[in-house]
Amino acid sequence: MNDCLFCKIVNNEIPSQKIFENEKILAFLDINPINPGHVLIVPKKHCNGLLDAGEENLNALIQPVPIIAKAIMSALDYEGFNLGVNNGSAAGQIVPHLHFHIMPRRAGDGHHLFHGAPYQLGEIEKVAEKIRQQLT
Amino acid sequence: MNDCLFCKIVNNEIPSQKIFENEKILAFLDINPINPGHVLIVPKKHCNGLLDAGEENLNALIQPVPIIAKAIMSALDYEGFNLGVNNGSAAGQIVPHLHFHIMPRRAGDGHHLFHGAPYQLGEIEKVAEKIRQQLT
Repeated sequence: MNDCLFCKIVNNEIPSQKIFENEKILAFLDINPINPGHVLIVPKKHCNGLLDAGEENLNALIQPVPIIAKAIMSALDYEGFNLGVNNGSAAGQIVPHLHFHIMPRRAGDGHHLFHGAPYQLGEIEKVAEKIRQQLT
Repeated sequence: MNDCLFCKIVNNEIPSQKIFENEKILAFLDINPINPGHVLIVPKKHCNGLLDAGEENLNALIQPVPIIAKAIMSALDYEGFNLGVNNGSAAGQIVPHLHFHIMPRRAGDGHHLFHGAPYQLGEIEKVAEKIRQQLT
């Protein structure tokens, strides 16, 4: 897409610190990392997010994650990592071109992700049933 | 694995609110959701995380994400979602059986994920080079 930041990075119209690429995906450093070495993986063919990515893009994006994550951890002495995808502006997606975040982590670095609170009594069964109804 | 919480859920030894399953994966509600409808997708065959998952598990886990996420958003009137995987205790992984989080979101719900700060001058090039060296 003409005005897409990540398409411009893919097409070398905007510079980036590239880490890895193949026919279908490009991995480069996020310029606003949660920790140094935070990488973004994007499909070379534009899509907005996970809902319009298609099977081929999804496989192409997930397959290099362990390879790239291992390299980041070895290079910069990290202990773990978060994989994350923000889908939609309500979820914090800023650039509307699908991107997988690999965020390297050390214990006690201050990031607390994905921890919630229990359901109220009887609520979880109702929520599950509503979702299952959409899948049948 | 005998003592694995999610293996016990897969094997129906511990109850869960199941949302979706196929031959390779099971999706069920996280009992401590960041928002109601927060779903975990796990491979039926045990692995600890993304690094030991293998190609087949990775594809099997990523493929149903759009299907399940659409169902959650339609069922519970959400606007977006985060996909997340905590890999290693340093990254907040509590149960050592690989699980993909699908976390439905509304604008302004108070969750702020994956936003960092810029590198210092000259730092990003050095970080990129260190990672690339691990991949060659």
